[in-house]
Amino acid sequence: MPYELLTQSYGKSRVRLTKVDRDADVHQITELSVDVELDGDFNAAYTDGDNALVVPTDTMKNTVYAFARELDPCELETFAWTLGSHFIEAFDHISDVYVKLTETPWERAVIDGQPHPHAFLGTSSERHTCQVGMSRSPDGEEPEGAIECGLEGLILLKTTDSGFSKFLQDEFTTLPEIDDRIMATNVTAKWMYNDSPDNWRGIRHRIRSILIREFAARFSPSVQATLYEMASAVLDVEPVVEEVSLSMPNLHRHLLDLSRFDLDNPNVLFVPSDEPHGSINATVCRQRPEG
Amino acid sequence: MPYELLTQSYGKSRVRLTKVDRDADVHQITELSVDVELDGDFNAAYTDGDNALVVPTDTMKNTVYAFARELDPCELETFAWTLGSHFIEAFDHISDVYVKLTETPWERAVIDGQPHPHAFLGTSSERHTCQVGMSRSPDGEEPEGAIECGLEGLILLKTTDSGFSKFLQDEFTTLPEIDDRIMATNVTAKWMYNDSPDNWRGIRHRIRSILIREFAARFSPSVQATLYEMASAVLDVEPVVEEVSLSMPNLHRHLLDLSRFDLDNPNVLFVPSDEPHGSINATVCRQRPEG
Amino acid sequence: MPYELLTQSYGKSRVRLTKVDRDADVHQITELSVDVELDGDFNAAYTDGDNALVVPTDTMKNTVYAFARELDPCELETFAWTLGSHFIEAFDHISDVYVKLTETPWERAVIDGQPHPHAFLGTSSERHTCQVGMSRSPDGEEPEGAIECGLEGLILLKTTDSGFSKFLQDEFTTLPEIDDRIMATNVTAKWMYNDSPDNWRGIRHRIRSILIREFAARFSPSVQATLYEMASAVLDVEPVVEEVSLSMPNLHRHLLDLSRFDLDNPNVLFVPSDEPHGSINATVCRQRPEG
Amino acid sequence: MPYELLTQSYGKSRVRLTKVDRDADVHQITELSVDVELDGDFNAAYTDGDNALVVPTDTMKNTVYAFARELDPCELETFAWTLGSHFIEAFDHISDVYVKLTETPWERAVIDGQPHPHAFLGTSSERHTCQVGMSRSPDGEEPEGAIECGLEGLILLKTTDSGFSKFLQDEFTTLPEIDDRIMATNVTAKWMYNDSPDNWRGIRHRIRSILIREFAARFSPSVQATLYEMASAVLDVEPVVEEVSLSMPNLHRHLLDLSRFDLDNPNVLFVPSDEPHGSINATVCRQRPEG
Repeated sequence: MPYELLTQSYGKSRVRLTKVDRDADVHQITELSVDVELDGDFNAAYTDGDNALVVPTDTMKNTVYAFARELDPCELETFAWTLGSHFIEAFDHISDVYVKLTETPWERAVIDGQPHPHAFLGTSSERHTCQVGMSRSPDGEEPEGAIECGLEGLILLKTTDSGFSKFLQDEFTTLPEIDDRIMATNVTAKWMYNDSPDNWRGIRHRIRSILIREFAARFSPSVQATLYEMASAVLDVEPVVEEVSLSMPNLHRHLLDLSRFDLDNPNVLFVPSDEPHGSINATVCRQRPEG
Repeated sequence: MPYELLTQSYGKSRVRLTKVDRDADVHQITELSVDVELDGDFNAAYTDGDNALVVPTDTMKNTVYAFARELDPCELETFAWTLGSHFIEAFDHISDVYVKLTETPWERAVIDGQPHPHAFLGTSSERHTCQVGMSRSPDGEEPEGAIECGLEGLILLKTTDSGFSKFLQDEFTTLPEIDDRIMATNVTAKWMYNDSPDNWRGIRHRIRSILIREFAARFSPSVQATLYEMASAVLDVEPVVEEVSLSMPNLHRHLLDLSRFDLDNPNVLFVPSDEPHGSINATVCRQRPEG
Repeated sequence: MPYELLTQSYGKSRVRLTKVDRDADVHQITELSVDVELDGDFNAAYTDGDNALVVPTDTMKNTVYAFARELDPCELETFAWTLGSHFIEAFDHISDVYVKLTETPWERAVIDGQPHPHAFLGTSSERHTCQVGMSRSPDGEEPEGAIECGLEGLILLKTTDSGFSKFLQDEFTTLPEIDDRIMATNVTAKWMYNDSPDNWRGIRHRIRSILIREFAARFSPSVQATLYEMASAVLDVEPVVEEVSLSMPNLHRHLLDLSRFDLDNPNVLFVPSDEPHGSINATVCRQRPEG
Repeated sequence: MPYELLTQSYGKSRVRLTKVDRDADVHQITELSVDVELDGDFNAAYTDGDNALVVPTDTMKNTVYAFARELDPCELETFAWTLGSHFIEAFDHISDVYVKLTETPWERAVIDGQPHPHAFLGTSSERHTCQVGMSRSPDGEEPEGAIECGLEGLILLKTTDSGFSKFLQDEFTTLPEIDDRIMATNVTAKWMYNDSPDNWRGIRHRIRSILIREFAARFSPSVQATLYEMASAVLDVEPVVEEVSLSMPNLHRHLLDLSRFDLDNPNVLFVPSDEPHGSINATVCRQRPEG
């Protein structure tokens, strides 16, 4: 072949499924969107039009469905790992598998103070995520890989206890220093464990609570500082977490100048603006021994 | 003018604002998107390029901001009415005003069991709506009009107690009859009052609870029947409500056929599908005396 | 029934299909999204849970597919009318049918100057629309109704020949008068015919050209005036068009103030802004004889 | 600090601008969305709440505007490089800059066969992209970096000359082999040069034409094979291109089974489906000398 196939990945995206656990009178529901990507010895498909080693993406979809029937997809991490392992085990020519799960949470309806056995609300913008990247072990052992857990769509706002001042000034600076502003963001979090947690859903819930608590806990001199505090608090409280990545766009609320209408505006009326927006992203991890 | 200007409306859409009530240590927040449209003697702008009677849409935006500063936009209905009335009162040539408010709810954060004084979550897909249409009174009295309240984005699902059977069959029917299925929808509700309720936000909250309760309450033979029960229950419980309109798309969850993989599927694994989707819409009102 | 079912409609939305005409070496392609809604004697479904007269929305979907196989959906107007008529003719209890078609245009690829026989580009934001509303004729004749044709997503901009001045001033006006600005909009057009045109696709194409030509033709004192000129030009040129409705949001480009950086800005650098935005809508029709 | 700040980036996203070149009677227009991200010595902002070295994202926005006023943003690559270089040159503590430009193309209106001097259509889904990543040179010389050019939203379809067969079969395979199908995709392309091309906009346009031509040129045994041919053709024709990355989702059109309605379907009627969808991604480059 005259040119080199430097990298490739192919797969199926947005395989959606709803699993209902009806074993008890009180039903459980898990709803996922699954992405699968494969890498391995697929060059001939690209360079020779030879599909002999191509697992159709339609087959990937069917595989997701069959595994979701036989397993409990509710524990995202084990479901993603087991699903990914299948491809490594079933096909010698596949070297790497990437699986991403995105869970839409359904909240049990509470009616007249009672949790309902089979009615749910799906009104949350939050999504639980789990990404597994795994590779065939060179010695034929279990595949190796990493599990990254996360959440998306956690929209937070505080009406005070936030400012931004003493920043660098140059000839393009027009932003005034401010010691009281609205701070709002849409948190995307990802984290990795250094060991398997006792309860995958339990620790996921606790991490979410820590992030919210720290966002609100004290004065924020910048998104950066609050992001670092949020990530650090997770590492403080949960020893099994090794590193935390947070993306926190700055969803600006601009103070309105109402003086043209003879009105004051003592930090009460703002205009939300989506664009342009600041974007702050960082990964915080435990200190690694040098060497 | 050779042609007739049959209808016109013009205005400003998506005027967004965030109002913070900081009077007490516990802050309140209201976030709205406002649409304003005007009708009246605007023909010359269209046919003669004469802007003398055109209230710029930029001015409408400023007016929204000024009124939001001076009033409490938290009570949507009175804010919309007052804002709309301004245009009727201020400009003799304006005959009709339409105001729509869409509120993004912010839920107070609860941290370690305590409601936080100034931190909020904005993760709900639900929106509170209020539409006011008003017209200049011919006798120079207060403007006349109607207030339509509503909610959007109330996503509900139940895992059982729903079926669909004994429907009309023709040569294009392939849908099997089913006595147990998942039912899911995204409720848009609008309602009108026959009198001013005692507490606008209180009754809004109660109507939402009734809709959820009736969705879950009993076996659903069709979206139509459940829609009617939901609307009727609001009329039953709240005498001040005169009519209720509900739009309830059928957010299908299709049962998967797994027999090709030697797997059964006793109503446990489904594929969510957004399109094509059923759509059921109706307005239910109190009986009106004939005559 | 204690309450009245004031209005109802139910149907299937977003039934998508791709039809390929392969009869000749040069292929043709039509891609549609179809919405169908029915009205009639459906009360029992709502109030009694009786589905005996309910045409399942799944059946509507199948009907769309079968008609698309047997007919040529390329001529939107006749396809929509024939499809709608089926429901009136097949079911005595159906009084009204609403069909909306939205066509995604595919443009034939031109390669090395030659039109390709079977490759297409789908990069246009424009959509062709056709809405048919029809009712059972009281005397058992052909159903009666109206066909509304249209287009959506026609995004137009001119860099000059637009201003806005001499508008009404009040205490909330801050907008400066301007005699040269960028004007940009996203045209949604609908029109109705007073007779069947000779060539449905031909006149649709000509109307689009007229709208673009008039948008660009001369100085615009307001969106209103240009909208009226665009609609009037269609009525001037095409006698078979009876009325034209245009919706033209004002997609603002705000002139940047760069004086803070010692830079002038003689109408060269602007910030596009989506929200809030002005919105101008009107229907222009031929004069109707009084009486 | 107890924890390590492993990585960070912060910046401003979606800084939109419209630049009009009015120097001649025939106007030119360039519309961009700009993202800027910075890396460098920003730890103190995260760990100590010290903003002294933080360039506000608002300043980044102003900088984009000022550079867009003084330079010609029409040549994306030189504008992105110059803008990025500013941050390296102006601030000793900044080590890396990332700039992404996304251009919305405006097509000159052609009216009665004549190109219009100042009216444009913005109806294309295509976007031109340019990403620059640059780093401070350790020896104080010019910053080093890479320019990646690209396009997004190039939606292509062919109604025949595509099949998929002789693929790997396992217990989850249900996809039938097919020798004639619709192939549709939405191409995202990125490429890098091994030298500065003579005309940045010219080669960009030629690459687009090559991609379309090769998509259509011959029978496609798989998306993979066609992707490789498209990338290879760019490398064949344009020696200054060093590598090409293509992402080509498989926008499925599923053949409808109409046998239930006693209708055949000889490859004429299909259902478009967005999800789940196949996704094929690869990078093809010139052979690199080993060693």
